[in-house]
Amino acid sequence: MSGYSTEGQKKIMLFSGRAHPELAEAVAKELGTELTPTTAQDFANGEIFIRFEESVRGADCFVMQSHTQPLNKWIMEQLIMIDALKRGSAKRITAILPFYPYARQDKKHRGREPISARLVADLLSAAGADRIVSVDLHTDQIQGFFDGPVDHMHAMPILTDYIKSKYSMDNLVVVSPDAGRVKVAEKWANTLGDAPMAFVHKTRSTEVANQVVSNRVVGDVEGKNCILLDDMIDTGGTIAGAVRVLKEAGAGDVVIATTHGVFSEPARERLSSCGAEEVITTDTLPQSTEGWDNLTVLSIAPLLAKTIHEIFENGSVTTLFEGQA
Amino acid sequence: MSGYSTEGQKKIMLFSGRAHPELAEAVAKELGTELTPTTAQDFANGEIFIRFEESVRGADCFVMQSHTQPLNKWIMEQLIMIDALKRGSAKRITAILPFYPYARQDKKHRGREPISARLVADLLSAAGADRIVSVDLHTDQIQGFFDGPVDHMHAMPILTDYIKSKYSMDNLVVVSPDAGRVKVAEKWANTLGDAPMAFVHKTRSTEVANQVVSNRVVGDVEGKNCILLDDMIDTGGTIAGAVRVLKEAGAGDVVIATTHGVFSEPARERLSSCGAEEVITTDTLPQSTEGWDNLTVLSIAPLLAKTIHEIFENGSVTTLFEGQA
Amino acid sequence: MSGYSTEGQKKIMLFSGRAHPELAEAVAKELGTELTPTTAQDFANGEIFIRFEESVRGADCFVMQSHTQPLNKWIMEQLIMIDALKRGSAKRITAILPFYPYARQDKKHRGREPISARLVADLLSAAGADRIVSVDLHTDQIQGFFDGPVDHMHAMPILTDYIKSKYSMDNLVVVSPDAGRVKVAEKWANTLGDAPMAFVHKTRSTEVANQVVSNRVVGDVEGKNCILLDDMIDTGGTIAGAVRVLKEAGAGDVVIATTHGVFSEPARERLSSCGAEEVITTDTLPQSTEGWDNLTVLSIAPLLAKTIHEIFENGSVTTLFEGQA
Amino acid sequence: MSGYSTEGQKKIMLFSGRAHPELAEAVAKELGTELTPTTAQDFANGEIFIRFEESVRGADCFVMQSHTQPLNKWIMEQLIMIDALKRGSAKRITAILPFYPYARQDKKHRGREPISARLVADLLSAAGADRIVSVDLHTDQIQGFFDGPVDHMHAMPILTDYIKSKYSMDNLVVVSPDAGRVKVAEKWANTLGDAPMAFVHKTRSTEVANQVVSNRVVGDVEGKNCILLDDMIDTGGTIAGAVRVLKEAGAGDVVIATTHGVFSEPARERLSSCGAEEVITTDTLPQSTEGWDNLTVLSIAPLLAKTIHEIFENGSVTTLFEGQA
Amino acid sequence: MSGYSTEGQKKIMLFSGRAHPELAEAVAKELGTELTPTTAQDFANGEIFIRFEESVRGADCFVMQSHTQPLNKWIMEQLIMIDALKRGSAKRITAILPFYPYARQDKKHRGREPISARLVADLLSAAGADRIVSVDLHTDQIQGFFDGPVDHMHAMPILTDYIKSKYSMDNLVVVSPDAGRVKVAEKWANTLGDAPMAFVHKTRSTEVANQVVSNRVVGDVEGKNCILLDDMIDTGGTIAGAVRVLKEAGAGDVVIATTHGVFSEPARERLSSCGAEEVITTDTLPQSTEGWDNLTVLSIAPLLAKTIHEIFENGSVTTLFEGQA
Amino acid sequence: MSGYSTEGQKKIMLFSGRAHPELAEAVAKELGTELTPTTAQDFANGEIFIRFEESVRGADCFVMQSHTQPLNKWIMEQLIMIDALKRGSAKRITAILPFYPYARQDKKHRGREPISARLVADLLSAAGADRIVSVDLHTDQIQGFFDGPVDHMHAMPILTDYIKSKYSMDNLVVVSPDAGRVKVAEKWANTLGDAPMAFVHKTRSTEVANQVVSNRVVGDVEGKNCILLDDMIDTGGTIAGAVRVLKEAGAGDVVIATTHGVFSEPARERLSSCGAEEVITTDTLPQSTEGWDNLTVLSIAPLLAKTIHEIFENGSVTTLFEGQA
Repeated sequence: MSGYSTEGQKKIMLFSGRAHPELAEAVAKELGTELTPTTAQDFANGEIFIRFEESVRGADCFVMQSHTQPLNKWIMEQLIMIDALKRGSAKRITAILPFYPYARQDKKHRGREPISARLVADLLSAAGADRIVSVDLHTDQIQGFFDGPVDHMHAMPILTDYIKSKYSMDNLVVVSPDAGRVKVAEKWANTLGDAPMAFVHKTRSTEVANQVVSNRVVGDVEGKNCILLDDMIDTGGTIAGAVRVLKEAGAGDVVIATTHGVFSEPARERLSSCGAEEVITTDTLPQSTEGWDNLTVLSIAPLLAKTIHEIFENGSVTTLFEGQA
Repeated sequence: MSGYSTEGQKKIMLFSGRAHPELAEAVAKELGTELTPTTAQDFANGEIFIRFEESVRGADCFVMQSHTQPLNKWIMEQLIMIDALKRGSAKRITAILPFYPYARQDKKHRGREPISARLVADLLSAAGADRIVSVDLHTDQIQGFFDGPVDHMHAMPILTDYIKSKYSMDNLVVVSPDAGRVKVAEKWANTLGDAPMAFVHKTRSTEVANQVVSNRVVGDVEGKNCILLDDMIDTGGTIAGAVRVLKEAGAGDVVIATTHGVFSEPARERLSSCGAEEVITTDTLPQSTEGWDNLTVLSIAPLLAKTIHEIFENGSVTTLFEGQA
Repeated sequence: MSGYSTEGQKKIMLFSGRAHPELAEAVAKELGTELTPTTAQDFANGEIFIRFEESVRGADCFVMQSHTQPLNKWIMEQLIMIDALKRGSAKRITAILPFYPYARQDKKHRGREPISARLVADLLSAAGADRIVSVDLHTDQIQGFFDGPVDHMHAMPILTDYIKSKYSMDNLVVVSPDAGRVKVAEKWANTLGDAPMAFVHKTRSTEVANQVVSNRVVGDVEGKNCILLDDMIDTGGTIAGAVRVLKEAGAGDVVIATTHGVFSEPARERLSSCGAEEVITTDTLPQSTEGWDNLTVLSIAPLLAKTIHEIFENGSVTTLFEGQA
Repeated sequence: MSGYSTEGQKKIMLFSGRAHPELAEAVAKELGTELTPTTAQDFANGEIFIRFEESVRGADCFVMQSHTQPLNKWIMEQLIMIDALKRGSAKRITAILPFYPYARQDKKHRGREPISARLVADLLSAAGADRIVSVDLHTDQIQGFFDGPVDHMHAMPILTDYIKSKYSMDNLVVVSPDAGRVKVAEKWANTLGDAPMAFVHKTRSTEVANQVVSNRVVGDVEGKNCILLDDMIDTGGTIAGAVRVLKEAGAGDVVIATTHGVFSEPARERLSSCGAEEVITTDTLPQSTEGWDNLTVLSIAPLLAKTIHEIFENGSVTTLFEGQA
Repeated sequence: MSGYSTEGQKKIMLFSGRAHPELAEAVAKELGTELTPTTAQDFANGEIFIRFEESVRGADCFVMQSHTQPLNKWIMEQLIMIDALKRGSAKRITAILPFYPYARQDKKHRGREPISARLVADLLSAAGADRIVSVDLHTDQIQGFFDGPVDHMHAMPILTDYIKSKYSMDNLVVVSPDAGRVKVAEKWANTLGDAPMAFVHKTRSTEVANQVVSNRVVGDVEGKNCILLDDMIDTGGTIAGAVRVLKEAGAGDVVIATTHGVFSEPARERLSSCGAEEVITTDTLPQSTEGWDNLTVLSIAPLLAKTIHEIFENGSVTTLFEGQA
Repeated sequence: MSGYSTEGQKKIMLFSGRAHPELAEAVAKELGTELTPTTAQDFANGEIFIRFEESVRGADCFVMQSHTQPLNKWIMEQLIMIDALKRGSAKRITAILPFYPYARQDKKHRGREPISARLVADLLSAAGADRIVSVDLHTDQIQGFFDGPVDHMHAMPILTDYIKSKYSMDNLVVVSPDAGRVKVAEKWANTLGDAPMAFVHKTRSTEVANQVVSNRVVGDVEGKNCILLDDMIDTGGTIAGAVRVLKEAGAGDVVIATTHGVFSEPARERLSSCGAEEVITTDTLPQSTEGWDNLTVLSIAPLLAKTIHEIFENGSVTTLFEGQA
């Protein structure tokens, strides 16, 4: 017979954008491998240039980027890296976005708006991404924006394990800072010993971005210690307002937990002075505890490393969260 | 110059599947037009056959179908109608799904599940639909599942106008039957005179479909009249349970409002006997008040007709909900 | 060099819809493996829910479904299973449709009709199927409706081997029940010792489904034993009419052979009483001989198992039919 | 409001490849318009160059090409013309292929073969064609190879009208030259006064192209005049053999009718000397009666012109064949 | 007949990103219309939010953006605007990029590089752009990166008209600053009275962005006045070096002309002090003459306005450059 | 666990069209394998028929074709081969086009022209090609026309090695025959010991194909030996004219080098008599030295074989040109 055969092999390769190389390096270390050397630089007018220093042909490639500021630049960088991998004959390209950008624009709030979270999925697909890995999407439905596998990781076990190890579970209430997060709070409540729940009935202006108006607490928090949670904290206005409302309602200690600490100005100031006992987050975005009194950063790297390992080895990612869905 | 020119014209045509022709006829009447005569029949083995009795060439076509039981059949019928329009040279095809099927499967609850709501969007697109019209999607994010315009109508004004005309706004609390609907309840609360809110902290089993466990009420309902709402009511277990819990918590009258009255067995029985004052729904699905003591059905046809008119005339659909988003 | 390599492996997994699990189990048994445990259930309003109980990541997945009644439900179930496999990171998805649904609508008979057989291919593709396996497509051209590999199996050898083992080849004539099957009858005639041929010149009404008008026999059948064949038999009207016409034309014994025994009502009655010696079919659709005097069911499972094995092992499917094309 | 509006207009433009400009000119004349001036030339190495001499922006463009020898060149020319129209901002592009090339390769006869008829549809689509017009496709299923509207014209009325006007309908039998055309022959038989039918049971070698073996006649032709028909006649071997077999079976006059007179060598010689009374065809391909004694060419131009007119004016193409489907 | 018809109309709407609203306003003024009011703002973490204040349904939409610094942000903004238009039911979306970003990365210079200029076309297409308008693409082939109409405008007539009006055509030589622009220089030479040509034989380092090494002049420039041209000038290193080399080779006055004055630091300084008589550019990017002694900015707005007008009215864009291709 | 696993293997298979089987055989020999036996023949009307004689299921397939005359036929043949591989379940399909056809039509020179080089990429993609290999594309940007990996080989090292081995490097000047090739000439100059450069300032008529007008030499060639190069030579008019102009300008020996010797009539005559010392080319197209005095043909087969080997083995193609990009 014509043609000849050889043993098939598969090779993993890890790539990092320039937004948060420390996280990528931590993941590589967990996996016992190294990041592929990559030339990345800006031309004078801001155009990004990428070249990989090793052949990627036939490799199972994972491209990590953290979508911190300047966020649009880092999106473009990741797209360009994916394009270069596609044209360089990578076998499979997995885009890793620990914090999924534009996740808040996941629907049209009113007419003639974009659905930017879907757009991001379309752009990744157009560039050549075969699959996506992300952590705690703003809404679960964003999984459905991508026409391919999305491995959706949850940081809740990392955060709740820490809380359980540090705080008493008695007299605890899980609080959602607004109506939209009550469903997630319910999961936390179930995990934290079937704790009772509350939420802040609040109005978010659809006219002006980031401006919020907090109101009354629904649910009983008087004399209770509160775990106040959100998937992401941007400027901290909503959360700081919620702490204030909780305190006014007679709450005891308030601990803030969030997967994505965006912490745009003036979040540090607001959260340091709002009266919260502790602010717990992960490093899906670059973090520094400098200037904070009460910030704790837990590492997401082991979770990402395990996920990548399961994807590469065709294991089960689902089992990473057995019993917690 | 070669070639010749004529005045461009545009023509609207309305089509109805066999699931709920009464709604389509009501819409046509509102628009002052008629449904296009269509041959639709089942072959002996269940295959559906479609033929349109008038030329659809160049027309702006709207294909209505209500996704009641047998739901999968009606999905296929709508897809087949769209395929026939595409191959018959329709200029533009708008699929109207007043009740979007499989909307509850809008995310992977656990691993190795489908996202059937995205699949439905993909199937419509594969068949040839250019745009979608739907009413009160289970989650707003479903808009982003379709790669094209989605006109998302809201039945809330129809329902709240009726409530306002019949019930006093004093002493009212808006109640969500579970944690996932609190956001929607907030919109209703704002519309109903900034009413206070509550919700039922409940566990829905992920193992067995439709089996639910209701628990305690979060928020204050004692001595208050409750508007208990949901986007859809299927077997009525969750809602009837919520009524019971509200009553136990000392609530006054409870009125149930839902856009999509799916009312699978034994919903009629449950809702008739649960102690609710009234059950208000719309005819996005075929409805009959027979056997009910307390069911009120409001017509969605005027809203759909207005929407189709705006789409055809390139008007603004957004203005239909001015001030209510 | 960065990255690390491991041995590539490949894994086969078999899945079955709920329409005909016995066939899937027979295939799995032939392959020496088992069906992947799958949760499949109907929600109260008819929506189907699917979850696979084992990781499908990286597996070569084969999804079997038999398209019996309620046919549209089983199509949707197969599409939903494919979507779940795609999102669960299956490496390759093969849809197996032993009986291809809507195959009769493979062209526009008149204007403004769908081509539903193409639509089915488009839907499978939209859901995520990479390839299709089917048996005795109504027309060979349906292969071209799918933009990817279609492995088209033939049941003729199974049927003709049985006929050869039971009936004398002398004095035999191969008969097509209508003008459209003469080409297929020619293949059978060649296989059955270059037997002579005949067909029934008949009119099928394009207005009313399943209503047929049989006429005269073209070709010489007087005193001959007839093998009357068709790819599928639905209500049996055409075939029973053909038997009658053959008998009137002086034919001896008439044996009916068909790959797909759809046998919608009143096929059993018609075929039992039409005077045919035997009705031979396969189990591409679920079959029961109950209530029949003269029905023989041959198993398609070994053929499907061999096909799946060749696909998985990258062998040749063509050689399964060597010398018979 | 921002923006300004003007009256929409639509413009038709007709283009012709170089294969058969006479047909395109005849169509233009019927439509009362002119072909758009086009520069078309071959570079020295055979590459084709195209430029349109008038703006095509916003026009409804129809691109005619006859697929005669050198057939692959004319396919490429039509694709290049379509690409130029797409890039030149044509509003809609209709590819007209009176004779659809590669129609005989509409399925895999055996393994590892192409389905070239589907490939042609894919290439037209990739180049930018929005719809297709063709005449008497080799099999109707080819309509389903294109993901968009296909207007499938029938030359049968043109051919049968001529036959009816010239020959007596008494004592006529409609004959298919092989088993694959019996279905089409049945349509002719119905049109020609419910005439009886016959066909030639023949073997076509799958090994060697164009080599055929004719055998016995199925059906009664003795003393009858025969209309022998086929959708296309290439080298004429099958047809000439069929005439011979009919004559041997005692047939009277034999008239040959075909839509597509490909007439590759040695068709002219074979058909002139085979004993047929007359050979009737159309000009879907360029024709010359030179060297023939018995060739009649009927014009397809009026039918194509009517079709283009209906497409442009959004009329009904189906009505062109009312009562003949 | 069912359905009803109305006169078709078409409406133009113009949109501007925030990078260079002055240009968009100048274009709108030329067209006698206004920019559509648009809400555009940055969330605290850098995410862009867009909403159009008027219905865009059915409109022919033109979205202008100038790709100046921060370039990646403005790309994302334009993509988000296009997504919003697509979802808001715009009839046709034309993306206008006077300066096409990433045009220099139009090929792989070495292995494992992206082709970012193609990526930009893919992203525009994924977002929903139907066509592109740009001015003086870095290479003409970029037109082919987009699968749809690209209207490629040329600023040369604007620049050469100005030069002809100000400088004597005698004793002029047209100079390309490197080997890659000689083809363009030839067009200029033909336009400027068949002037003689020269170019600088130079090495551009592929290792370090923007670092260039200039060498000797090929062609005769001694005692001649030079028009030194390039499609874009970024940091000005190449061009300033070329002026120096020309002067060393005995050239007279040197005038620099470029379509896209990117002028990243330290371009202003370099070009002010390099000895050039005048630097002529256009406002495809925002320009300020502040701090320059010798900068002249010509407006591109009339050209863009004429192009938009022709596209909207289905006129000919080609005729805008009659005789100059 | 259900399912079973086996060792993954990979198999290479090589296929050749009929245009230039000698080159494919030379490549197969270099690789130590054989071409897969393929039936390829023309039907009487010019339609091409293809069947592969061995199973291609799961194989890594490379399809070679040389695009010589009749060029459009060979393009269609390659597309049909790719379609057959796709439908035959090939794992990966690489189209090898040593000479990329229609490369000169890589942009719109004027309005309403095609971009045929992009069209060719689209057609390959539509047929099913996953990647492309080509040699010395007319412009590098053509890489970006294909949405996937393009391995772009360079023949320059083969040609310059030969030149270095035969000619003295002293007193050499590298000459481009027109303004468009100066960039490529610069690469040669760098490779040939930093030789000086020149080019011919010429006008190519855009009205009439292949008609050229040569003018003056830019750069100093007097008394120098010239290497005159081009990527392809078609009829040889430009090159022969350039030789003449160089001689008139006092040049010494002139050696012509080109990757693609198209050599359409009357190239052989022109180049034999134009005064060039030697004409050096490769066998990307079929070559014969018959009738030439001064033609040297170097083999491209080793380069193609090495490339295929690297692609199959997932090695680096980039390293084949280390230091030469």
